[in-house]
Amino acid sequence: MNLYEKLAEELENQIRNGAYQIGDKLPSVRSLHQQTGLSISTVLQSMYVLEAKGLIEAQPKRGYFITYHSPKNQPRPGIYQPTEKAGRRDMEDFIQKVYGQISAEPGLVNFAIGVPSAKMLPVARLKKIVRETMLDTSDALVSYEPIVGNLKLRRQIAKRTSLWEHGVSPDDLITTSGCMNSLATALMALTKKGDSIITETPVYFGTLQLARSLGLKVIEMPTHSEHGMDLEEIKKMLKQQQIAAIIVVSNFSNPLGYSMSSQSKRTLVRICTNHQVPLIEEDLYGDVYFGSERPLSCKSFDKEGMVLWCSSVSKTLAPGYRVGWISPGKYKDKIIKTKLYHNVSSPSLTHEVVAHFLDKGRYDKHLRQLRITLQHNLHKYLQLIQEYFPIHTKVTFPKGGFQLWVELDPRIDTTLLYEAALRMGIKYAPGRMFTLRDQYKNCLRLSFGLDWDENTANALTKLGLLFQHQLVHY
Amino acid sequence: MNLYEKLAEELENQIRNGAYQIGDKLPSVRSLHQQTGLSISTVLQSMYVLEAKGLIEAQPKRGYFITYHSPKNQPRPGIYQPTEKAGRRDMEDFIQKVYGQISAEPGLVNFAIGVPSAKMLPVARLKKIVRETMLDTSDALVSYEPIVGNLKLRRQIAKRTSLWEHGVSPDDLITTSGCMNSLATALMALTKKGDSIITETPVYFGTLQLARSLGLKVIEMPTHSEHGMDLEEIKKMLKQQQIAAIIVVSNFSNPLGYSMSSQSKRTLVRICTNHQVPLIEEDLYGDVYFGSERPLSCKSFDKEGMVLWCSSVSKTLAPGYRVGWISPGKYKDKIIKTKLYHNVSSPSLTHEVVAHFLDKGRYDKHLRQLRITLQHNLHKYLQLIQEYFPIHTKVTFPKGGFQLWVELDPRIDTTLLYEAALRMGIKYAPGRMFTLRDQYKNCLRLSFGLDWDENTANALTKLGLLFQHQLVHY
Repeated sequence: MNLYEKLAEELENQIRNGAYQIGDKLPSVRSLHQQTGLSISTVLQSMYVLEAKGLIEAQPKRGYFITYHSPKNQPRPGIYQPTEKAGRRDMEDFIQKVYGQISAEPGLVNFAIGVPSAKMLPVARLKKIVRETMLDTSDALVSYEPIVGNLKLRRQIAKRTSLWEHGVSPDDLITTSGCMNSLATALMALTKKGDSIITETPVYFGTLQLARSLGLKVIEMPTHSEHGMDLEEIKKMLKQQQIAAIIVVSNFSNPLGYSMSSQSKRTLVRICTNHQVPLIEEDLYGDVYFGSERPLSCKSFDKEGMVLWCSSVSKTLAPGYRVGWISPGKYKDKIIKTKLYHNVSSPSLTHEVVAHFLDKGRYDKHLRQLRITLQHNLHKYLQLIQEYFPIHTKVTFPKGGFQLWVELDPRIDTTLLYEAALRMGIKYAPGRMFTLRDQYKNCLRLSFGLDWDENTANALTKLGLLFQHQLVHY
Repeated sequence: MNLYEKLAEELENQIRNGAYQIGDKLPSVRSLHQQTGLSISTVLQSMYVLEAKGLIEAQPKRGYFITYHSPKNQPRPGIYQPTEKAGRRDMEDFIQKVYGQISAEPGLVNFAIGVPSAKMLPVARLKKIVRETMLDTSDALVSYEPIVGNLKLRRQIAKRTSLWEHGVSPDDLITTSGCMNSLATALMALTKKGDSIITETPVYFGTLQLARSLGLKVIEMPTHSEHGMDLEEIKKMLKQQQIAAIIVVSNFSNPLGYSMSSQSKRTLVRICTNHQVPLIEEDLYGDVYFGSERPLSCKSFDKEGMVLWCSSVSKTLAPGYRVGWISPGKYKDKIIKTKLYHNVSSPSLTHEVVAHFLDKGRYDKHLRQLRITLQHNLHKYLQLIQEYFPIHTKVTFPKGGFQLWVELDPRIDTTLLYEAALRMGIKYAPGRMFTLRDQYKNCLRLSFGLDWDENTANALTKLGLLFQHQLVHY
């Protein structure tokens, strides 16, 4: 880490911990220079970093002021227990209503979306890479790829895991049509109708829909909004009954945003190894971390090939290209066969383009910028939620990804209020979609992957006021 | 049809019907000119057509000579009855051995392949279209497509069905990752573990593998190598037991190459409608016809939405791009959900490229050339098979597609001889792969989608001699 990065991090920690309040003035550049012994230009570089993250703002001739509303005292959700009550019968149509149209809807502020805004993605460079890819190929890539997938792409992905304790080699990778397709392939390969699988709660509704369509029984585990699933409960469950697979979103899970500690990851892998239960790890948000380095994966602690590590570039580069992968551990043969039977092979063109991009597209530079933008957005969101959402609103404080989970007063029903919000030009994902049980009625998921502008800020404010208004009527 | 095309067709019919033998001289251009009243240049144009199809050959200063060995007297397979004996237990590993490596293997003449040679595909124009597509887009197509798929592509596909009695509208189409993925999506949407489905026999092994992985029971129906499944038997079966779906490859089926008559198609649709059983129609070879016009689909006779019409551009444009579609009739909602749960959406880039190609890439011109090339190959194959394969060898005479089905003397086991052929640098698809029962041991499938050159001709000759040799040893 450079000197300016160190100073920026130190100041950021102070700001985040509430040492400064919104509107406070930061010590002047000169006094920081004297205090730290760093050069003026180094101190200024730190200021630029904090500014880019939306923590401070320069006021001409006055200095730097805190724009960050410390969410320190904002209550956090804590642990979610699955309720005994079943009942999500009516949510399928509802989900269809929210997501029936997954492409852009003009005039709508869509907090329900699952990908970052196209403006945050490296569109110009991607276009260049597509053109270059076509110049480099002699056959326009019309032929089938090998079943396991594009070798260049598998090499690039493997390279990115080279620092892990148990890195992934190109031979341990099979490409897919995105992380959801990785999960579908893994579940089809590992389970049969009537089997039980373990997930977190609340859990991404797509996982529930897929499991249901495959005839699987989903057992939701108690989950802490900052630490993830309760591992003791998982152990108990594994002793009680046959489990075909455990699904975990290890880093910046959707919707809760928690990130498991390395210790928890190691423990979970050990539990799965002891019980010989495959662990399907969805690590699709891991590259969008707000800390100083990428968190590890469960896969990196996997000695015996129990972990099926699934990821994609859908959250960081090109959602529409549908490029994902799976490192299947000892389940490789089954995964290959399932992929073959359902798809023959992956689309050659998009996979080659992404391979080229990872190689030559300055992907890491793009990721750095994306992380800063999303972190900036997160702060803005937390600020407005604290200001405009009802008092006692609980909200997560994710250390990565782009989803916020909000828990409102128990009297508010976000499913009922969905239509009212829609009439105001606002979409969000009601909490009830994220479970098969009868709970999370007063919760919602908000994406902060939208472009931060007046529209977004206004919509967020209006949403808070809608909920406030609802409470007043009780 | 032009005058020269008419004359060419008339002569072709005469040649095919055995009016001329190989080596015979065709009437001179001058005498044809006098006989028909057509101009010399028109007659010459007809000659060029016949030459391109490999039926005749010009010998300088001598005239045109027949190069086509009329397969008129070559025995045809006729009807295949599924045997009572089950037993394909050991074929999974065998299929893996043949197809484990689906990309090109240098030095091998691979008659087992399922796509035309890359040299037959419009590579240069495809590259151009990819570059143009990138120029036309503002966002490099990074965003998700609508779940149903690219609208431009659906419009182009619909346009190609506009002459059908019941054409397909863009709203009746859902894009997929190729025809195999269409079939997988349809089976997942329409069936559950333990259900029974009806197929032809012999049947494409990929269909069998997929059905098995989904826990479906496959009932193979008696099938005629020129006319398709026995519809009376299907009717009987539908009265006897519950059938979840019927799968039919209506035009130039793989492996038999038969094409159902329009009347049969109409009847099959009526049977399905009467019994309310969905008909999954794979029509992926329909554009590769050798007659004067594209045969109709079952879908074109479908009034009540019983037919799920599946196709792709994998056999005609870009196998590696994985672009297919399905017109799901009244099963649309189920198909959409299954696609969503497993893939979210189709890859934007490849689907947009194919849409552009169908619109501006002179696709029909390419198809014309492809058909002529394949037909030329077919004649060359039939000629060598007649010359070098054992006497009494039965072989199909497909009116489209690029697969030949060969039935040898019952004492020859093509599975056993596979390794011997491989040592000679030749791969083929043994007949036993195309059934779940214990039959077709003396059959094989040969692709004539390979480039016709000395290597191919030599390999085909050697293969025939290998089988001859085998017989001598009995």
